[in-house]
Amino acid sequence: MTYRIAILGASGYTGAELVRLIATHPEMRIVALSADRKAGMAMAEVFPFLRHLDLPKLVKIEEIDFSNVDLCFCALPHATTQAVIAGLPRDLKIVDLSADFRLRDPAEYQKWYGQPHAAVELQKEAVYGLTEFYRDEIRKARLIAGTGCNAATGQYALRPLISAGVIDLDDIVIDLKAGVSGAGRSLKENLLHAELSGGTHSYSAGGKHRHLGEFDQEFSKLAGRPVLVQFTPHLLPMNRGILATVYVKGDPQVVHATLAAAYAQEPFLQVLPFGALPSTRDIAGSNFCHLGVTGDRIPGRAIVVAVLDNLTKGSSGQAIQNANLALGIDETTGLMLAPVFP
Amino acid sequence: MTYRIAILGASGYTGAELVRLIATHPEMRIVALSADRKAGMAMAEVFPFLRHLDLPKLVKIEEIDFSNVDLCFCALPHATTQAVIAGLPRDLKIVDLSADFRLRDPAEYQKWYGQPHAAVELQKEAVYGLTEFYRDEIRKARLIAGTGCNAATGQYALRPLISAGVIDLDDIVIDLKAGVSGAGRSLKENLLHAELSGGTHSYSAGGKHRHLGEFDQEFSKLAGRPVLVQFTPHLLPMNRGILATVYVKGDPQVVHATLAAAYAQEPFLQVLPFGALPSTRDIAGSNFCHLGVTGDRIPGRAIVVAVLDNLTKGSSGQAIQNANLALGIDETTGLMLAPVFP
Amino acid sequence: MTYRIAILGASGYTGAELVRLIATHPEMRIVALSADRKAGMAMAEVFPFLRHLDLPKLVKIEEIDFSNVDLCFCALPHATTQAVIAGLPRDLKIVDLSADFRLRDPAEYQKWYGQPHAAVELQKEAVYGLTEFYRDEIRKARLIAGTGCNAATGQYALRPLISAGVIDLDDIVIDLKAGVSGAGRSLKENLLHAELSGGTHSYSAGGKHRHLGEFDQEFSKLAGRPVLVQFTPHLLPMNRGILATVYVKGDPQVVHATLAAAYAQEPFLQVLPFGALPSTRDIAGSNFCHLGVTGDRIPGRAIVVAVLDNLTKGSSGQAIQNANLALGIDETTGLMLAPVFP
Amino acid sequence: MTYRIAILGASGYTGAELVRLIATHPEMRIVALSADRKAGMAMAEVFPFLRHLDLPKLVKIEEIDFSNVDLCFCALPHATTQAVIAGLPRDLKIVDLSADFRLRDPAEYQKWYGQPHAAVELQKEAVYGLTEFYRDEIRKARLIAGTGCNAATGQYALRPLISAGVIDLDDIVIDLKAGVSGAGRSLKENLLHAELSGGTHSYSAGGKHRHLGEFDQEFSKLAGRPVLVQFTPHLLPMNRGILATVYVKGDPQVVHATLAAAYAQEPFLQVLPFGALPSTRDIAGSNFCHLGVTGDRIPGRAIVVAVLDNLTKGSSGQAIQNANLALGIDETTGLMLAPVFP
Repeated sequence: MTYRIAILGASGYTGAELVRLIATHPEMRIVALSADRKAGMAMAEVFPFLRHLDLPKLVKIEEIDFSNVDLCFCALPHATTQAVIAGLPRDLKIVDLSADFRLRDPAEYQKWYGQPHAAVELQKEAVYGLTEFYRDEIRKARLIAGTGCNAATGQYALRPLISAGVIDLDDIVIDLKAGVSGAGRSLKENLLHAELSGGTHSYSAGGKHRHLGEFDQEFSKLAGRPVLVQFTPHLLPMNRGILATVYVKGDPQVVHATLAAAYAQEPFLQVLPFGALPSTRDIAGSNFCHLGVTGDRIPGRAIVVAVLDNLTKGSSGQAIQNANLALGIDETTGLMLAPVFP
Repeated sequence: MTYRIAILGASGYTGAELVRLIATHPEMRIVALSADRKAGMAMAEVFPFLRHLDLPKLVKIEEIDFSNVDLCFCALPHATTQAVIAGLPRDLKIVDLSADFRLRDPAEYQKWYGQPHAAVELQKEAVYGLTEFYRDEIRKARLIAGTGCNAATGQYALRPLISAGVIDLDDIVIDLKAGVSGAGRSLKENLLHAELSGGTHSYSAGGKHRHLGEFDQEFSKLAGRPVLVQFTPHLLPMNRGILATVYVKGDPQVVHATLAAAYAQEPFLQVLPFGALPSTRDIAGSNFCHLGVTGDRIPGRAIVVAVLDNLTKGSSGQAIQNANLALGIDETTGLMLAPVFP
Repeated sequence: MTYRIAILGASGYTGAELVRLIATHPEMRIVALSADRKAGMAMAEVFPFLRHLDLPKLVKIEEIDFSNVDLCFCALPHATTQAVIAGLPRDLKIVDLSADFRLRDPAEYQKWYGQPHAAVELQKEAVYGLTEFYRDEIRKARLIAGTGCNAATGQYALRPLISAGVIDLDDIVIDLKAGVSGAGRSLKENLLHAELSGGTHSYSAGGKHRHLGEFDQEFSKLAGRPVLVQFTPHLLPMNRGILATVYVKGDPQVVHATLAAAYAQEPFLQVLPFGALPSTRDIAGSNFCHLGVTGDRIPGRAIVVAVLDNLTKGSSGQAIQNANLALGIDETTGLMLAPVFP
Repeated sequence: MTYRIAILGASGYTGAELVRLIATHPEMRIVALSADRKAGMAMAEVFPFLRHLDLPKLVKIEEIDFSNVDLCFCALPHATTQAVIAGLPRDLKIVDLSADFRLRDPAEYQKWYGQPHAAVELQKEAVYGLTEFYRDEIRKARLIAGTGCNAATGQYALRPLISAGVIDLDDIVIDLKAGVSGAGRSLKENLLHAELSGGTHSYSAGGKHRHLGEFDQEFSKLAGRPVLVQFTPHLLPMNRGILATVYVKGDPQVVHATLAAAYAQEPFLQVLPFGALPSTRDIAGSNFCHLGVTGDRIPGRAIVVAVLDNLTKGSSGQAIQNANLALGIDETTGLMLAPVFP
């Protein structure tokens, strides 16, 4: 069967990545693409790398006939998303890639995003889209909230460890290195090639990054008590990829065994042998997440390194994985593309 | 049906690219991988980006049982290749990615590669693997010689123009910009990140690049008289991609129309509207070649720009396209992967 | 003696490069810095790499007391520049880095820049700032017009050849590769790291680039008859540097000898031995221009490759070299900084 | 006065960086350059970016007449260095850039470098070259041991905090991001552009990096008791620059005030205002180190970020700063070059 797909916000990087992946997905067909300011243009004008595909023209959302749509991906900015999704048919399956439905608690949303949530009822309905940990809910969900890309990376490194109680919950440091496509196609001085290439800096340091809201929600829920992590992202001169270096206190071999056991059956989560640490180059363009664990010369300390592609496993690949579940088809369909190296 | 595939020389970039593409090819299965110095290792050790695949271990060529192989890709260095292929079963289908069987004339081989050809009989048997122009021969061939990646790019820009007689044959300049993966995984000082990133230089300038042998052979054959082009490659700080800026004398609109007509039915060759010029970013990781044509303020001059990914359309993707033909399956099978952007 | 320097437009890359170079210039001291939108800010806020310097705050132009200024660099956008310079004291020495005073003929200005020139009297007064060819005029000038960075590169490769009559004037192709800082700090999608890194494309192809106005003016003047060159720039994923590959018809040895003789005494123009071609990596951050010449397998063809740093020898370094002349101090003062490699 | 300088090991990156800096140093003149395998070549052949300089040819060490040398920089690999320096005149001033004389305890040397120290007497004589903390000893020293580049970065972030007793000594994490030139010009697969660009990975994780020997020695000496830090370096796709993100437990404001006070008079160590964090782009090519401090949402935690250029402040710039002291000239002479941005 072929499912009819709409993508709202198709002129951004996550929208384009959805199109790239669906291009070779055997059971999805794109029937509508929206882009507010670029409505009327062909997708090939906005993204020439997609010119070999036969795609519908970009339109405004209100021009889409959703009765012909089986599932809608929503790749719009946060805040905008709430209003848009509130106006869509109430029985339409939606996989959202924005931050709007990730946090269960409206107060937390307001705290991290600086404004009250305008669709609190929908927020209740939404399922958190970290596939490997919410599969059953996602299968049954109507509205799936994609995770933050950094939030996904940190959670893959930490969730099994927190659940198993094998690390000190009060001393977790996530030092994260992120490629620039995570910032989207926005015109900011610090995203220019001349400003970014050849160097690095940290940003949103000191507990200010919004993905902390997700870490707090999920880790505290797992632990059954508040868990606060330290989280410092850095921007790197690379386009795709996140590498999270996670410093924990616990027995390194136990940490490794816990992760290896938790992910043994997971098609996309690959735990390397003890002592081997992953590289972002080895997952670029793919839906895979590689994880490695090593100890330190200081006993009782372990380092977990997780890498994934922010545009794929960190957002659009995850979204398709969730859509596959929601549509009742095999979870890996269309997602087994190998990484691109070099 | 699933064809059983062997890859000789799997530890280089073109070998790895073959594995990447075959990973999602529905009718090919890898049954043997060779790598001389790395025999005994798992592919995932040599290329961790392929660790999600269930692949045979790397072995020496003599360990392979070719009676179980339907088609063999040969991704070995030139000169070595001649000896290896001469020792393979005479009825084995072979797609070669080296330079050893590209030139019909043994004297030309010796001129460009500095040594006599050691398998002249095989050379006669080989078909030149520029798919779109040798389809019928490739379908029937036992030994297919993949083209040089630069040679492919220049030929896509020029062959229809030479055939149609719409440009001056004595004044063709190919200024080519190439990514570094074309140089392979060899340990040379000028391929180090510290030496290469952030700058550019020309190499093999002045008519010294070996792919000139292919240009000479093919263009002269098409024209029915000797055609010598000027060809200056430059090394760019990028991993994948070739952009050829080709300066010709002829009517720009005629040049555009000639290319557009020639490639109208080609699945992988995309001619942009007149005046639009392509970017390597839009074909990276894919088997597509984009071509653009524009005029100049000086009447009677045209610029043709062609881009392709040297590892895909320029070598391993081309090889699979040719293998598809040789195996009698649809030419595009497994090759419709969209480019990866950004 | 220490000359008092003002820089108008200090918040752009060429403005910052002026400050960088003057920081170790023994006879210049910055007394005023202007930046319209960023007036009131410290330079270290706009460019933290300059934070070790004791610099005046950014102000609006009208706040500057020009009676305390010996020489003013003007690094403003074209068009704006005309109005600003028209309002400055008529005896103030000015080195302009914009395009506004490069073209002698107001009609040419209008043709290339799309609007009439608003300060035609000043245009007459201006001297074209290609130092090595206009030294005497620059020494006596009040208003010096810095050249385009691409225009400088092409002229270094070609002027002596045109003057000496050793090449065919009707068949000159300049294929140019440029780093991104030449486009300035402007917020354009195609200048984002995610869009630019890892790939290349041509721009302003087909005789549309504005620096053609300079080529036409200068080459035709040298030749005593109209000379039109073909000029195709390409944007490369690097921050600094221009490499011009210039295809000419003439005897390669004569071409080399002509350039070598012309530049034998030039401190900043280095002609490599015949057959050696330069790299942009070897001039980055410096005021040097390296030139190389080789022949082709086709007799009577030569390739000249010239490289320089667009921000230094291509604009701000050139500007200081011209200012040194205008102030009567040694031309190389403050400019002998070695390139930065790697 | 002009001091006569020899550089041993001039064909590596730190050797070339010494030449670059001395090129505009008013009181140093290079009289001898050695390079074992490249003896007989001109420096401009090995490093074309230095071709504008009038430099002595590369020779073998034994060809140098050290009676004409006032100070010798030694930029050779470790182990080799011991033997070479042991053979130099005993009254020659030497600034060594290798790892051979950094560690006071021969047992520590053997532990980290895997072989016994062969010049134990010289090791006793050597002064640790972290300029700002060993000025008096350096002024009087004959043999100065340059620090590791990572070791310098971490120490600038931590020494004043350890001395002042304002942080928990048992919980220090240094997550370091390093550019590739720190690995030198060696031919390793993982240093190739195709392997390195566009991605990141950690290396020597888990307490294995040799610079830990320096951290242990210096921090324990400062604290008067053993101090062990966690230290995980990462390789980034950039040529120059180190960024150390240092996680400490202590009051952020006190941490900031302590660093600001300690470095208030230092010409090269710049502490940013509280909350501002530095970028490697702002120190590239220069001898400056920028430091920033911020707090975390978790009380009692602070993050210190330090950046420097591994080739300049991390090695060759530091070496010249130390040489200036040893020669009795102003410490900043020749080192006030502004960073190169972009």
